[in-house]
Amino acid sequence: MSDAIRLFGLGLGPGNPDYMTVRARDVLTRADRLAHFCRRGVRGHARTIADAVVGPDASREIAMVYPVTTEVPADHPDYAAALNPFYEACAARLFQEIAAGHVVAVLCEGDPFFYGSFMHLWRRLKDRVPTEVIPAVTGMSGAWTRAGAPITWGDDVLTVLPGTLPQADLARRLAATDAAVVMKLGRNLPKVRAALAEAGLLGRALYVERATMREERIVPLAELPEDEPAPYFSMIVVPGEGRRV
Amino acid sequence: MSDAIRLFGLGLGPGNPDYMTVRARDVLTRADRLAHFCRRGVRGHARTIADAVVGPDASREIAMVYPVTTEVPADHPDYAAALNPFYEACAARLFQEIAAGHVVAVLCEGDPFFYGSFMHLWRRLKDRVPTEVIPAVTGMSGAWTRAGAPITWGDDVLTVLPGTLPQADLARRLAATDAAVVMKLGRNLPKVRAALAEAGLLGRALYVERATMREERIVPLAELPEDEPAPYFSMIVVPGEGRRV
Repeated sequence: MSDAIRLFGLGLGPGNPDYMTVRARDVLTRADRLAHFCRRGVRGHARTIADAVVGPDASREIAMVYPVTTEVPADHPDYAAALNPFYEACAARLFQEIAAGHVVAVLCEGDPFFYGSFMHLWRRLKDRVPTEVIPAVTGMSGAWTRAGAPITWGDDVLTVLPGTLPQADLARRLAATDAAVVMKLGRNLPKVRAALAEAGLLGRALYVERATMREERIVPLAELPEDEPAPYFSMIVVPGEGRRV
Repeated sequence: MSDAIRLFGLGLGPGNPDYMTVRARDVLTRADRLAHFCRRGVRGHARTIADAVVGPDASREIAMVYPVTTEVPADHPDYAAALNPFYEACAARLFQEIAAGHVVAVLCEGDPFFYGSFMHLWRRLKDRVPTEVIPAVTGMSGAWTRAGAPITWGDDVLTVLPGTLPQADLARRLAATDAAVVMKLGRNLPKVRAALAEAGLLGRALYVERATMREERIVPLAELPEDEPAPYFSMIVVPGEGRRV
């Protein structure tokens, strides 16, 4: 670890600690402040991944508790109104730790620069403190690997879609791509399922929950009961059917 | 490593050996046959990434030399005519090694199931020998991380495009997405540049060459001389501009 770096965006991968990078494990062992995002009363997922490497040492831990999560839609004005001061306060807190001489690692599930909350801290701090971002195996790589579903063949186009988009938008984009991953399922699953059906892709869609983790579950979407809720760590994978040689 | 697994699709990440996963490093150390794809007369890139972990031990090495690479376009009949017997022969060779009691790891740059040549061996061998695929940090994660360019914010849609597509197709898809990565540049770079200009994205496009490696080079595409050839390990990253809070 370069001695100059004071803030790490530490990607920890899809869930299985063996899929952490060598660099991530090194920084995890050495940083003297470990910050992570979590929901109120729930241990953060990124922090849980780190359990394999980091013992219980309360003096290193900084929990950053989201004021809201999915109870306010992200496009609602209340969302930004709540999240903006939250990220400002988190950035101030981490800056304070760094100013006091500590090396801070922000633990991130998946890859920090791929839909990561860390990005909101990064843009507030990157010009104020020496920062390093450590890329990681994405949740979607974990998902298509564990599903035994190579995602892109030959000249396949891959589209990654947040399940939060309107159904018509999802259906149109799904119909126009060779391979797809739909993230952020949760309460959006019924809408995503309908969009996949509209695009004629229901038969190719795989539902992947908690890929690479102990509670992993992978089923063809068509076999998933319609009334079942999807947890946050779930996604849809539609593998491409491009050139086989 | 489970003793039962005889064939590994071993993702080694974007290039910097520190971005290898803990699992990949473990398998790299233990497998007694290391197979890798390469062009005639050129050391394979995946094999080079492994140098940090694997010393010179010719008895472990299996080089699989492509009969053609970019000199025949992939949509030309000659391409499949040359590649199909090649992959058949490779699969037969690896099967033979496994039947002789060896554990074979196929070294893959990036993530094995994301545009990986390994997929062509995997589909030939997966039902014949116990196989494990190890996901990895993709080249594109390495690229957007090193470019300091968080790729997707909020509800951004990400489209991954092979530069081999026709210009009109590239331009149409680029214009319809929030964030994009264009892979497989090489000789396609002038066409990709024109498509980005057509889609109004030239000003946002970053050219990333050999991300995470010693020879890494990152420049705004608009500043890259037009007559410069792009190597295989280069891509275009167009970061999304979605919700900042």
